[in-house]
Amino acid sequence: MPLTQDQQDEINELRSTTTQTLRATAPGMEKHLYTAYPVLDHGFVRVIDYMGDDNAITQAARVSYGKGTKAVSNDEGLIRYLMRHWHSTPFEMCELKLHVKLPVFVARQWIRHRTANVNEYSARYSILDREFYIPAPEHLAAQSVVNNQGRGEALSGEEAERVLRYLRDDAMRCYDHYEEMISQDDQQGLARELARMNLPANVYTQWYWKVDLHNLLHFLRLRADAHAQYEIRVYADEICKLVADWVPYAYKAFEDYRMGGATLSSTALDCVRRMIKGEEVTQENSGMSKGEWREFQALL
Amino acid sequence: MPLTQDQQDEINELRSTTTQTLRATAPGMEKHLYTAYPVLDHGFVRVIDYMGDDNAITQAARVSYGKGTKAVSNDEGLIRYLMRHWHSTPFEMCELKLHVKLPVFVARQWIRHRTANVNEYSARYSILDREFYIPAPEHLAAQSVVNNQGRGEALSGEEAERVLRYLRDDAMRCYDHYEEMISQDDQQGLARELARMNLPANVYTQWYWKVDLHNLLHFLRLRADAHAQYEIRVYADEICKLVADWVPYAYKAFEDYRMGGATLSSTALDCVRRMIKGEEVTQENSGMSKGEWREFQALL
Amino acid sequence: MPLTQDQQDEINELRSTTTQTLRATAPGMEKHLYTAYPVLDHGFVRVIDYMGDDNAITQAARVSYGKGTKAVSNDEGLIRYLMRHWHSTPFEMCELKLHVKLPVFVARQWIRHRTANVNEYSARYSILDREFYIPAPEHLAAQSVVNNQGRGEALSGEEAERVLRYLRDDAMRCYDHYEEMISQDDQQGLARELARMNLPANVYTQWYWKVDLHNLLHFLRLRADAHAQYEIRVYADEICKLVADWVPYAYKAFEDYRMGGATLSSTALDCVRRMIKGEEVTQENSGMSKGEWREFQALL
Amino acid sequence: MPLTQDQQDEINELRSTTTQTLRATAPGMEKHLYTAYPVLDHGFVRVIDYMGDDNAITQAARVSYGKGTKAVSNDEGLIRYLMRHWHSTPFEMCELKLHVKLPVFVARQWIRHRTANVNEYSARYSILDREFYIPAPEHLAAQSVVNNQGRGEALSGEEAERVLRYLRDDAMRCYDHYEEMISQDDQQGLARELARMNLPANVYTQWYWKVDLHNLLHFLRLRADAHAQYEIRVYADEICKLVADWVPYAYKAFEDYRMGGATLSSTALDCVRRMIKGEEVTQENSGMSKGEWREFQALL
Repeated sequence: MPLTQDQQDEINELRSTTTQTLRATAPGMEKHLYTAYPVLDHGFVRVIDYMGDDNAITQAARVSYGKGTKAVSNDEGLIRYLMRHWHSTPFEMCELKLHVKLPVFVARQWIRHRTANVNEYSARYSILDREFYIPAPEHLAAQSVVNNQGRGEALSGEEAERVLRYLRDDAMRCYDHYEEMISQDDQQGLARELARMNLPANVYTQWYWKVDLHNLLHFLRLRADAHAQYEIRVYADEICKLVADWVPYAYKAFEDYRMGGATLSSTALDCVRRMIKGEEVTQENSGMSKGEWREFQALL
Repeated sequence: MPLTQDQQDEINELRSTTTQTLRATAPGMEKHLYTAYPVLDHGFVRVIDYMGDDNAITQAARVSYGKGTKAVSNDEGLIRYLMRHWHSTPFEMCELKLHVKLPVFVARQWIRHRTANVNEYSARYSILDREFYIPAPEHLAAQSVVNNQGRGEALSGEEAERVLRYLRDDAMRCYDHYEEMISQDDQQGLARELARMNLPANVYTQWYWKVDLHNLLHFLRLRADAHAQYEIRVYADEICKLVADWVPYAYKAFEDYRMGGATLSSTALDCVRRMIKGEEVTQENSGMSKGEWREFQALL
Repeated sequence: MPLTQDQQDEINELRSTTTQTLRATAPGMEKHLYTAYPVLDHGFVRVIDYMGDDNAITQAARVSYGKGTKAVSNDEGLIRYLMRHWHSTPFEMCELKLHVKLPVFVARQWIRHRTANVNEYSARYSILDREFYIPAPEHLAAQSVVNNQGRGEALSGEEAERVLRYLRDDAMRCYDHYEEMISQDDQQGLARELARMNLPANVYTQWYWKVDLHNLLHFLRLRADAHAQYEIRVYADEICKLVADWVPYAYKAFEDYRMGGATLSSTALDCVRRMIKGEEVTQENSGMSKGEWREFQALL
Repeated sequence: MPLTQDQQDEINELRSTTTQTLRATAPGMEKHLYTAYPVLDHGFVRVIDYMGDDNAITQAARVSYGKGTKAVSNDEGLIRYLMRHWHSTPFEMCELKLHVKLPVFVARQWIRHRTANVNEYSARYSILDREFYIPAPEHLAAQSVVNNQGRGEALSGEEAERVLRYLRDDAMRCYDHYEEMISQDDQQGLARELARMNLPANVYTQWYWKVDLHNLLHFLRLRADAHAQYEIRVYADEICKLVADWVPYAYKAFEDYRMGGATLSSTALDCVRRMIKGEEVTQENSGMSKGEWREFQALL
């Protein structure tokens, strides 16, 4: 269970106190505020704060385009137009702040998205908890045989058992030694900033992560994608649900134009045109490499 | 007067509708929300939305430093510590969204601050209003005789009158021609994206500008400074008042450590040490150039 | 002619001095270094410096993917793979520094691309030259009748003449007054930082602009596009030629996957699939709005 | 030894091939190009490419300030002026690309500097080497007793031996299991993206890191500082030496104004003024908290 009773009590208290505000409020998001949604075995995602709603997007767009935009009859239509034409600045006018608990190897992927604000728990300063990600048996995947950067089927039998035993035992032993090294009982105690180096990458950390909606959607497009590593995808999936309730028009446009969409090259567009005319197009006469053709076929 | 009756009515309506929220609310900022504070002859600054308060800063810092930070007994002390030690990430956890109306030559300085989100009125798409910044007589400053990038005393007499006449007449004539060129009465009408090039840089534009508190304070340090151009400084001064009411602890620390503070070089620090010991330090034995010494003297 | 004899002499001198370096060198770019390529009536683009070449992109990718990437048999194939899969970080490993002279209204669009480094000529500090963009007659376009943000045909006859006369005369008169206001002959002279506000937006400015290849390609995709305003598109077109010679594999991939490509929504992809099967798809049964359908038709 | 014979051969070859270029060349940096300077037990720093030199900084500043800057008689004086007045954009005109090998816990601190370009070795894709940072005995520091985020003296005797044994043995055991888990001999083999989670944070990774000079100096001010963790400071120290040879004027100004300098608050400045006048200033009458006063005393 990812939360202690104390933490749950704090959340309950925060959720019981409402204040008056003149700001735009998103009812769909208010219901999620502070609640920790479990992810993986010890992780969670919870909304700490948000700014703006669907209307904040169109309001910003109307500053840019003035009275002219009244032609686009409604908010949803305008949001779809902005998404379709990659007019990204109005989406930057919404902001989300999350509290996330996640394994270090997931955090290392996540942090590569640079246009966000982050405050991470400091293991130089404080002591990490004895919490490690151990995959559920069905997620203990083999290396893909077709793709260097991918997974195959789940391991099974003795091999699966051995892997789980290694992961658990090594984590526990490393943590025992971490604790023993920093202990100040009858010894000096190693500096925390050094001792932490003994902890494997499945140890959990946590951070506050604040990002604008445009950059958040970019993150979700990459990390909620089928090719993303499972362990970060489950976080992205959870965040998708929150965004869908927060800015429903923007999220729907995102699903249609980004998540479900695809970019075709000039060559691929040309093939599509020929195919629609009834022409037989093969890899050989497509102008594509084998890899591109395979991806093109999968798309259609 | 910068606002039309329609705009004022809209503001009044927005200010009369409060909703319930579970989010952190800053009472000092709620009272400013939506209100347009006049700046220069036709400009204004108004708060459209905000995220976080002083407590959001310490909350984020405590994620980083964990239980250890309880040693710093209170929120104000912790905020001062963070500011003093340039721990900037917790200040990034607050966000402000402003609606600003400002002359184009001011907008051109302002936009150089890259870490912000902007939606500007589009003169490709829409028609600019006949509004130009004309300096008040006391701000019609002469070129500084000591500093290439500065102002001297206000012009006076016939020279002042002539300058004001040029600014007014050129603006009006350029706008007359702008209107005439885009007119579609009995002619095709020049494209707006071209016609706008005839308007001088004192024409007003407007934008939504969203920025986190860390980057906002950096902007204010540079633009509310005595060396900033008067026409941007008045905007920065107005924003300072809003920030002081929004995050009072952070603003006070900012005033003490940034606005009122100064950075001394290694050489200057050495001189200070010698002077405190009672030694006579002159430019010649200071190790500083004449320019540095002049600035050092001005500081002490 | 955009360059004075002095400037041309300086360029000739720079181009006559070669030094030895151990760094990667792009022969296709060396031939362009320092040369000012004219754009519009007084503008130019010239390369001041560059870092990296096609090989720097694959080298960086191979740090990420290690020995595994040897499978992609050659550099061009790997660059195409990276572009197709939006792996943008290796493209950030190349950098370009340009010196650009351009009208202020173009500079205002350009600066919206935030991930670049800029040093602009300061009109607070120095005096602007009497140089204004006056469109060639064939680019004096009427407002589009179908699109608020676009151009129609070129103006003609008396209307065209009147527009050109306004643009020229207003620019000259504003500049005369600018000069007169800052003059210190027998008067104090208005501060430069104020006087500049009298100059219309077709006055020329100049800057150094440094950007990495990934962000440069993003800029080119938007600004070399048929929907971009003509006056910024000619700069983008000129830069495209330079990039094509600098990193030929990357540029070719960019042309195929970005410039000539298109993003299809989930709905549009579905229509394509139906059309390839021979089904009759109309706007009514497509699931698209009229606007989307029109764009979709134009694509195919 | 951080480099294999193969890698050393490649470096020797790169260093033996010079080409002609028209670009600005920094002789002080050419001598370092490609050479791997050892850091910690298995790490290194090496320059892969650079753009610009001291002259590129003043050249960019002169674009901004035009002819007026000729008043500052020489390049070094101008660079010192820019540094002293926080005019940061000219420093952004130089760029450095490094190849760094470093332990993961150091990489996690380093990556927090967001304004840089990074390509890291991918452990999803490729297999990490059996290389772990094991501190030298003199760097095996105890937790500071005065500062939660700091180190005390080196551990000694049996405690030191036990810590070293834990670090070595845990690293080796975790790596043995990593290898065994991904092995495809007589088993499926765990996906690399999962197996890596078993490796502790002292395992080495490597990346290409590209950054402009302004942001690099900011990094160095924080990470070459006495309060930075030793294991990142040694990298920063090594980079300082490279920068000193690359842009000697800029580096000297940086040393004087940033590394050796200090920011005084308004209150501290006031105390300095009083002390220079001969007044007795104590913590009680200083207006500072105990913590601030202690830091102020340490400075003077």
